[in-house]
Amino acid sequence: MAVPVNELSRLPLLAGLPQVTLAHLAQHATERSFAKREVVLQKGGDGASFCFLLEGRLQGVDFTADGREVGLYFVASGDYFGDLAVIDGLPHPIYVTAVSRSRVVFVPRDLIRPILFAHAKVAEILCTGLSLRLRQVSGQRRILGLANPLQRVCAQLELLFVKDADGKVQVPNAPTHQEIAIMINASRETVTRVFQLLQSRGIVERNGNHMNIDDPAFLEDVAAGRRQPE
Amino acid sequence: MAVPVNELSRLPLLAGLPQVTLAHLAQHATERSFAKREVVLQKGGDGASFCFLLEGRLQGVDFTADGREVGLYFVASGDYFGDLAVIDGLPHPIYVTAVSRSRVVFVPRDLIRPILFAHAKVAEILCTGLSLRLRQVSGQRRILGLANPLQRVCAQLELLFVKDADGKVQVPNAPTHQEIAIMINASRETVTRVFQLLQSRGIVERNGNHMNIDDPAFLEDVAAGRRQPE
Repeated sequence: MAVPVNELSRLPLLAGLPQVTLAHLAQHATERSFAKREVVLQKGGDGASFCFLLEGRLQGVDFTADGREVGLYFVASGDYFGDLAVIDGLPHPIYVTAVSRSRVVFVPRDLIRPILFAHAKVAEILCTGLSLRLRQVSGQRRILGLANPLQRVCAQLELLFVKDADGKVQVPNAPTHQEIAIMINASRETVTRVFQLLQSRGIVERNGNHMNIDDPAFLEDVAAGRRQPE
Repeated sequence: MAVPVNELSRLPLLAGLPQVTLAHLAQHATERSFAKREVVLQKGGDGASFCFLLEGRLQGVDFTADGREVGLYFVASGDYFGDLAVIDGLPHPIYVTAVSRSRVVFVPRDLIRPILFAHAKVAEILCTGLSLRLRQVSGQRRILGLANPLQRVCAQLELLFVKDADGKVQVPNAPTHQEIAIMINASRETVTRVFQLLQSRGIVERNGNHMNIDDPAFLEDVAAGRRQPE
């Protein structure tokens, strides 16, 4: 069950590849849809395929040794995932689950692996992606060194927000309270309480799927322990 | 102040490069020695150089927003570091400091960056290295989800130990109590107390620079919250 070539050529990682290479990959690739909450990749599974998300949203999750869920990163439409196991040959380090209904393309490992390293542009994108993810996970790890959950929520928002050209600060596709809770080792209830506090102070406000950060300096100060709200 | 070519050709990342490429890199590389505790790379600095550790031992460290030290990973002799900023063009995400007296080679970014992606073997080693580091940091992050420091020490030792061909389990170059403390968000005193407990039960024992793990199953059980010592 091949995948249309134009689905692959639209993916940023593969866009620069010769048409003949893309056609070869497409011919051996398969596509599958996943319902919300369905597991896309099993932790411990082997890296039989390199995966691309065509549509939807996924989250890399894991569990502590004593069974609590830990949220690690999100996969957005157009991104690839399952790359670690393909690259280093070890089992998938975490679960990847669908946060919303998702369409995924699987490309067999043995077919795509040599291509990843043989094309300088692909290797550059891959290395850059790994590098950015490493920064993100390290930043996440740094947040967990903070003593109280209020600080951790503020530091997490700092990691997630982006500033647009007009200087407006926003968290695009803001995670739910539960999703934030498992990123920062806190209960969902605690995260909700922190957001009620931040909203009542006019620091953040919900804006459809996004979250406006009206006072980013306040978040920084709280994260750094320099200021207590109220 | 060039570096001898044979110093570079012995480095695993560069070993497969043509002699002429190595000679070119060596000609523009510089070498510097660092005393114990000296800072080798500043957090926030730009990735002007790709760095190799010729001799010694380094640690990537950072500080939480409220100023506590966080240990992230070690660099061993022959490894490279400072690669993230060279790859993705963002500032160095953390400090790298010398754990012992160290000799470091600096290769200018603009010279080495294209070479990293143009040679399939180099790209493969680089991607594999990033992949393994990502697993390590994620594993570290998972440990911090554990409620008590005893569990975290045991889970940390699980991450660090290696099994040799005879089935003997060992942590090579075992980190100090202070180094472990900053990896797992605990005080040095707490880590020392945990080790006294584990040693008195015959679970672990010091062996020169290394640490023998005499009962790895016990560590797993404690990390998973299935068993309490005593």
